[in-house]
Amino acid sequence: MSVDGLTHHISSRYNEDLQRLLSNVLAMGGLVERQLLQAVEAITDPDEEAVVRVAKGELRVNQLEREIDEDCSRILATRSPTASDLRLILTILKTITDLERIGDEGEKIAGIATRLAARERPRNRYRELRNLGELVIGMVHDTLDAFARHDTELALEVLRRDRIVDEEYESIHRQSITFMMEDPRWIRRALDVMWVVRSLERIGDHSKNVCEYLIYLVHGRDVRHVRIEEIERELSESEHGEAAESARSAPGGGRPASAEPPGADSPAVQPADGELSGGYAHVATLPAGGRPGMLGAAGLPSSAAGK
Amino acid sequence: MSVDGLTHHISSRYNEDLQRLLSNVLAMGGLVERQLLQAVEAITDPDEEAVVRVAKGELRVNQLEREIDEDCSRILATRSPTASDLRLILTILKTITDLERIGDEGEKIAGIATRLAARERPRNRYRELRNLGELVIGMVHDTLDAFARHDTELALEVLRRDRIVDEEYESIHRQSITFMMEDPRWIRRALDVMWVVRSLERIGDHSKNVCEYLIYLVHGRDVRHVRIEEIERELSESEHGEAAESARSAPGGGRPASAEPPGADSPAVQPADGELSGGYAHVATLPAGGRPGMLGAAGLPSSAAGK
Repeated sequence: MSVDGLTHHISSRYNEDLQRLLSNVLAMGGLVERQLLQAVEAITDPDEEAVVRVAKGELRVNQLEREIDEDCSRILATRSPTASDLRLILTILKTITDLERIGDEGEKIAGIATRLAARERPRNRYRELRNLGELVIGMVHDTLDAFARHDTELALEVLRRDRIVDEEYESIHRQSITFMMEDPRWIRRALDVMWVVRSLERIGDHSKNVCEYLIYLVHGRDVRHVRIEEIERELSESEHGEAAESARSAPGGGRPASAEPPGADSPAVQPADGELSGGYAHVATLPAGGRPGMLGAAGLPSSAAGK
Repeated sequence: MSVDGLTHHISSRYNEDLQRLLSNVLAMGGLVERQLLQAVEAITDPDEEAVVRVAKGELRVNQLEREIDEDCSRILATRSPTASDLRLILTILKTITDLERIGDEGEKIAGIATRLAARERPRNRYRELRNLGELVIGMVHDTLDAFARHDTELALEVLRRDRIVDEEYESIHRQSITFMMEDPRWIRRALDVMWVVRSLERIGDHSKNVCEYLIYLVHGRDVRHVRIEEIERELSESEHGEAAESARSAPGGGRPASAEPPGADSPAVQPADGELSGGYAHVATLPAGGRPGMLGAAGLPSSAAGK
């Protein structure tokens, strides 16, 4: 048996392992997104069952988190991944923690929605809450999409949107204080609105975290605690035009190819960490277009696609 | 060169790697704890510099998080750890995320403390906030202590204390609403109090997360999303008396030996995950008492020790 044959065999099993992992992460993400959608809808359209459905979904989310966690441990123990495969697994381990916490916040929102439903409903104001909710659900959706396609352009866009969420948060917050001051009977409702807004803001932060992990995965650059302008400048400098060229020549797939993971033949983007470098050699050996297509179909649920 | 010699050599370097890692995690934790102490103190004792000091400390915390993160990646890539070593590294990767977020909450508290300091101070009420703050700082302190000593008894105690934090949270929350309703001029201050309490509650949750990771590390049992009574019952069943015996015969070190990591000669506690089992064989090869002593001194800062 040749060394090459063995490597090939291991690599093929590897692909299966990694694909199953990614598929599960996206299934978990899709579930979390659907939960969030139900929770936010319950704010404007009272639905007594929502809180029960969300709580049930949360059990499944927790179960998926544990399964993925164990799967990562097993792959680390049995395959000793290095370079980009190792980065992928570490990224997944961090990502599922954030996804699980998005699920937690969704559960909180569903609970508050039930409380809000029991009180007099000021249609107009909760609309604002719903708008912010949709903005945040969009962030979660695009984060999962970016993750499935290794689309760092989309990830950057999500990072940018987090500022809008922060501004909306401030605005609804200020407004709620005004209502409270004008009429003390508004205090409890205004506080509930504030808790929802805060949960939504945290969900935005968790999405942002996942996008940052993705940028680390693809570009090998740790962008946590770095201003968005700086990230954009650095990534555009490191790509200096080559990505744009490859985008024009790449087969169409709904997204610019500059967003695809840089392959072994795209040395423009150099991971920052010496020992773990190696670009995206492993992923690049997958059949062209195989991962995004498969994962797009398997990972993103109909509720997300139909949003 | 004998296989045994090589293994021995690698194992020795391993020990250095793992000790450096643990040492850095505890240094990071100590820093976070000190930040939190400064932030909470600033609530009752106005201190204009506190917010600046905490922000500066936060930069160092973030830097440490990145360093430990990279160190874990490097060890995974170069040493391909398995069994308990792998679990240790995965535990550390999760732990530093929670520590970093405790640091974030500490920074928020310091900011609000500055705002509260600018307003009329109702001595008595902020005392409650401070009491809760001290309770939570105690949780963080004991979490780090439990982590340094692999003391799952202490970790369980921290989990139990989280309930008291939740009760205190509810109590201050209700009280704040009452104040708001009685006098609208209280609204902004009461909201600030509520934000601090919520931050403290989250810090309690993060401590709880770390304690749960530790229980997984030592007992191989994933106790996330499991009720505390069930955890206690399971762990006491799996130990069925043997731990208590070894506690009496172990050399004194300020803590019961039942809390020490189970060594290769302590097969009573069996990790739940088949492939990753192996007890605590690796850690058990360290010089007796070496880890807790060394880490206790290096990791826990004087501010924490003097609490």
